[in-house]
Amino acid sequence: MTRSVTVLCGGVGAARFMRALAGVHSRADTTAIINTGDDTVLHGLSISPDIDTVIYTLAGAIDPDRGWGLRGESWRAMESLERYAAVRPDGSTAAPTWFNLGDKDLATHLYRTARLAEGAPLTLVTAEIAAAWGLEQWLLPMTDVSVATMVTLREERVEVPFQEYFVQRRHNVPVEGIRFAGAAEASLPPLVRAALADSEVVVVAPSNPLVSIAPIRALGDVNEILNARRESVVAISPIVGGVALKGPAAQMLRELGHEPSVVGVARLYADIAATLVIDPLDRAHVPAIEAAGMRVVVTPSVMSEKDVGPELARRTLAAARR
Amino acid sequence: MTRSVTVLCGGVGAARFMRALAGVHSRADTTAIINTGDDTVLHGLSISPDIDTVIYTLAGAIDPDRGWGLRGESWRAMESLERYAAVRPDGSTAAPTWFNLGDKDLATHLYRTARLAEGAPLTLVTAEIAAAWGLEQWLLPMTDVSVATMVTLREERVEVPFQEYFVQRRHNVPVEGIRFAGAAEASLPPLVRAALADSEVVVVAPSNPLVSIAPIRALGDVNEILNARRESVVAISPIVGGVALKGPAAQMLRELGHEPSVVGVARLYADIAATLVIDPLDRAHVPAIEAAGMRVVVTPSVMSEKDVGPELARRTLAAARR
Repeated sequence: MTRSVTVLCGGVGAARFMRALAGVHSRADTTAIINTGDDTVLHGLSISPDIDTVIYTLAGAIDPDRGWGLRGESWRAMESLERYAAVRPDGSTAAPTWFNLGDKDLATHLYRTARLAEGAPLTLVTAEIAAAWGLEQWLLPMTDVSVATMVTLREERVEVPFQEYFVQRRHNVPVEGIRFAGAAEASLPPLVRAALADSEVVVVAPSNPLVSIAPIRALGDVNEILNARRESVVAISPIVGGVALKGPAAQMLRELGHEPSVVGVARLYADIAATLVIDPLDRAHVPAIEAAGMRVVVTPSVMSEKDVGPELARRTLAAARR
Repeated sequence: MTRSVTVLCGGVGAARFMRALAGVHSRADTTAIINTGDDTVLHGLSISPDIDTVIYTLAGAIDPDRGWGLRGESWRAMESLERYAAVRPDGSTAAPTWFNLGDKDLATHLYRTARLAEGAPLTLVTAEIAAAWGLEQWLLPMTDVSVATMVTLREERVEVPFQEYFVQRRHNVPVEGIRFAGAAEASLPPLVRAALADSEVVVVAPSNPLVSIAPIRALGDVNEILNARRESVVAISPIVGGVALKGPAAQMLRELGHEPSVVGVARLYADIAATLVIDPLDRAHVPAIEAAGMRVVVTPSVMSEKDVGPELARRTLAAARR
């Protein structure tokens, strides 16, 4: 009998871990709880970047170079939008061309938008999209209601939705605060609660702790649920050798007063996970992680390298204690 | 000094007339009032087929074979939707694949949808789209509010929105009624009223009288305005030799109790136009048209034939009396 595993997921790093996990663990006994704080509406279309990255990656359809979007994508709709961006009146944000939506990828947003307009909850729509790609894992949005990750930019002194920081400004401006608008009012869906409370193992994927995992933790009593079972919760550090494998995790940790290292990650996760998985490059930090209250598993964790993913997944599952 | 000309427009036939007119008359002194009864929302996107056909045609970007959509179009978003159509639950109409939206064309709908969501009226958005394509004509939607052409199907005994009749059923099912939902409550925009009342010439384009021109006539006092100035209103028959040049006009005339000929067209237009332009193929009908109360201009009107358009436009303008 296989153990049920629940994975807290952001985007690219989580998607790669999910793909590795699929090779070593029963897919039908795997549940992902996916961050939706990055979700946005552009051109009237409902876009869920982390959900789509996980689905496209598990389906083997992700573009391997970009890490997001579909393989063999074309960009004719986006190119054609430039014509309208040029005549957009002052004050309008129509026809944004800073967020690339591929022609094939558009179909996913068209379907999601139409189903949500019909009243279907995001959880159901996500299950339909996953089924359309032939996936067997349970892929759960963290919530069916709108929770928006808002980022306060230090220099402009404005608060912007996550994608305006991450994509429009290419996450190269300093951040001074992060807030999850709507999280306090958002209820934890019963399926999410059950996956967190009842699965035999919980994995915190190698995603950004501050903007990918934190929105999930901001919902209801997620922290309390995980704290109560922290012996069987294993986190994988998204920081290797002091840098983020993808995205702005390291600079964000620094800007927001955390140590940009596996030690900073350990301090963020010690309350909810008993074990941290780190790369051998960070072996010197083991005593500091243990001092922060976490056990350590040292194993290669750069999944873009060959054969690393399956062993990382196996070692991660093995580290969970009953 | 050129005379101001206003053209009542449906889709393909009207667009071709507008293109011909642009060659013989000042574009800045030309206004189109375009049917929006065919407008629809698909995938959450606001689609205005007749407006887009006029714009793409005037911009020289229309696909010459289909008569609608953009030249050199690709269909990757639509092809990708098939995956989702296959998992759509019973009762859902998400991911319709019967209405083709090209990848480049999608940009127009994305822009229109986003601008409408910002609160911009369709008239303004249409002017922006026309400007983006470099057009100088004034292109006015017949109204800024929703007016929906509804078609009652004889055999199914159901009333469906126009596009479900026209595109989904390929207009090959018999019709027993047409209704313009919302027309009674819709106000006539001031710019439309001025173009109808004050232009020196009004042309009724060779469009379907029952589903392209009738929605415009159903608004406010359009019939009264045109009746009061009918000497300077010239209609072009969309029926040549008893058949429609494009679409279901002839069969619709028959099914709804009208004569499917230039004579049937004359009877529909006699109240609002003093002159009907017909093709030489229909010369035998001149006495019957005159008996219906209209003067007749006979000139080649099949615009897909070379050089026909400009002469048709010239003869049409010349037929208007002060």
